[in-house]
Amino acid sequence: MLARILRHVARDVKVSIGDDAAVLRGRKTELVWTVDVCVEGVHFVREWLRWEDVGWRSLHAAASDLAAMGARPVAALSSLVVPRDLGRTELQALVRGQAQAARALGCPVVGGNLSRGQELSITTTVLGDASRPVLRTGARPGQELWLVGEVGLAAAGRLLLERGEGGRRCIQAWRRPRARIEEGQVLRSRAAAMIDVSDGLAGDLRQLADASRVKMVVEQPQLERALPVALSRAAESLGVAALDLALYGGEDYALVAAGLPRRRAAIARRIGRVEAGHGAFLEPASGHRIVALGDGFDHLS
Amino acid sequence: MLARILRHVARDVKVSIGDDAAVLRGRKTELVWTVDVCVEGVHFVREWLRWEDVGWRSLHAAASDLAAMGARPVAALSSLVVPRDLGRTELQALVRGQAQAARALGCPVVGGNLSRGQELSITTTVLGDASRPVLRTGARPGQELWLVGEVGLAAAGRLLLERGEGGRRCIQAWRRPRARIEEGQVLRSRAAAMIDVSDGLAGDLRQLADASRVKMVVEQPQLERALPVALSRAAESLGVAALDLALYGGEDYALVAAGLPRRRAAIARRIGRVEAGHGAFLEPASGHRIVALGDGFDHLS
Repeated sequence: MLARILRHVARDVKVSIGDDAAVLRGRKTELVWTVDVCVEGVHFVREWLRWEDVGWRSLHAAASDLAAMGARPVAALSSLVVPRDLGRTELQALVRGQAQAARALGCPVVGGNLSRGQELSITTTVLGDASRPVLRTGARPGQELWLVGEVGLAAAGRLLLERGEGGRRCIQAWRRPRARIEEGQVLRSRAAAMIDVSDGLAGDLRQLADASRVKMVVEQPQLERALPVALSRAAESLGVAALDLALYGGEDYALVAAGLPRRRAAIARRIGRVEAGHGAFLEPASGHRIVALGDGFDHLS
Repeated sequence: MLARILRHVARDVKVSIGDDAAVLRGRKTELVWTVDVCVEGVHFVREWLRWEDVGWRSLHAAASDLAAMGARPVAALSSLVVPRDLGRTELQALVRGQAQAARALGCPVVGGNLSRGQELSITTTVLGDASRPVLRTGARPGQELWLVGEVGLAAAGRLLLERGEGGRRCIQAWRRPRARIEEGQVLRSRAAAMIDVSDGLAGDLRQLADASRVKMVVEQPQLERALPVALSRAAESLGVAALDLALYGGEDYALVAAGLPRRRAAIARRIGRVEAGHGAFLEPASGHRIVALGDGFDHLS
């Protein structure tokens, strides 16, 4: 089954599916390595997407961690736990979605594992390389906060699906997110610290602030200027604030980085600043009192 | 939580838990990479072992794939799906077992992922290196079949636990298996093809035969000579044939290799031979008609 997704095998891969383990060409640059899981009922409900989307999302969600370090994905392994009510056709569609994502990311799935279980889960591990990966620890007072990509659309899409409402752009953002690999590589030599927005801008910013031991202030007018029109429309239809979706909705896999103003890339929008202190805050308007940002979505809450 | 297991961080590890991904030192030797999962109710039942054992087994089972290629494990990532009925104490014990295994294997757990789910599963990915990994494809007629480690004990232990019977050595073999990393490295320059016995000697031998496009013949008297006394005793108590446990019982993580007689290491016992043809067979006695070996335990059967 998994062998089908191996049309796209890079020169990095010496041995793939069919042996005890995958064998990759060694490299002198640093290795950047992550693992992520999508569990049915926790991360998705099968009624909300096609099986190809489930496969696509699983690979992009994992690869996004590499984007957040400015790394290039080299290869992936996929471990599936498959319940008996998932038929062969559905499984093939899921693997097809992984293969589509693998091609889009230039990151072949070179092995994996298949097990029975009660509950469908897709665990994806992605290995990549980067000569100087961007960590979460490099943010310093005086730097700007940058946003690359959009936030809130995927959360809006998920809510629209829950309520059975339409809104193509948002629903597509949730069903087919994209790890910002190229953008991450543009930021690699420019950003001092970086994270991907998987759980929600507020929570992920706080993680970035904690890791760097600084205070991060999102300037609300700047963030609002960065929000797409589709988000405002969806927010209105859902009866929620677009700003809340942007701050607390995850799974868009945008990148947030901190860096010096003169190093900002054209793809990055300034949404705030780094100060001395700790925590993540929102400044409603210039000169107004800042308010602490609460948690993003926590898979374990 | 996962940060606790990071007492043993090798110089290979530049960034571990706390960032988007782990960062490892690059290396010019080939990278050998695998992923494996333990699912509660499929691979174990919580009544049969302590939580430390669950953690220990998960890491050794994954590392065994690297042993089978003669690779040295460098680091691991652990992705846990945790149901609500698993308390903090149990989870800590599980992670402690992973840490024990990590120290024993010289393979620190440098990151991971935690998610809610209905069903407990532990997915482990292990990255290692080897300058010339041993593949499954190198067996040729004229070579011997070698066994390193024991087979059947773990299956006997599992059956004893199922039936509530005693048998310390077998039960321990199932609860605390050991990836044969050092043995794999001894065989790296000697074996032409190698596999670890995870599903059962018969099935794994057939996979080795298929990958190398040869025929493998297990010589029953040779294999029986290699079986430990504890296995015969357990087999008697269980009312099953020791040979069946040895051929069809998995999870001992012994190594089976093919190689030239003059290259055999002292730790390897000859249990058969490689011939032209295909499939895996048993020769009951010298000169007797050989019989095809059936399947080992298949997690998806």
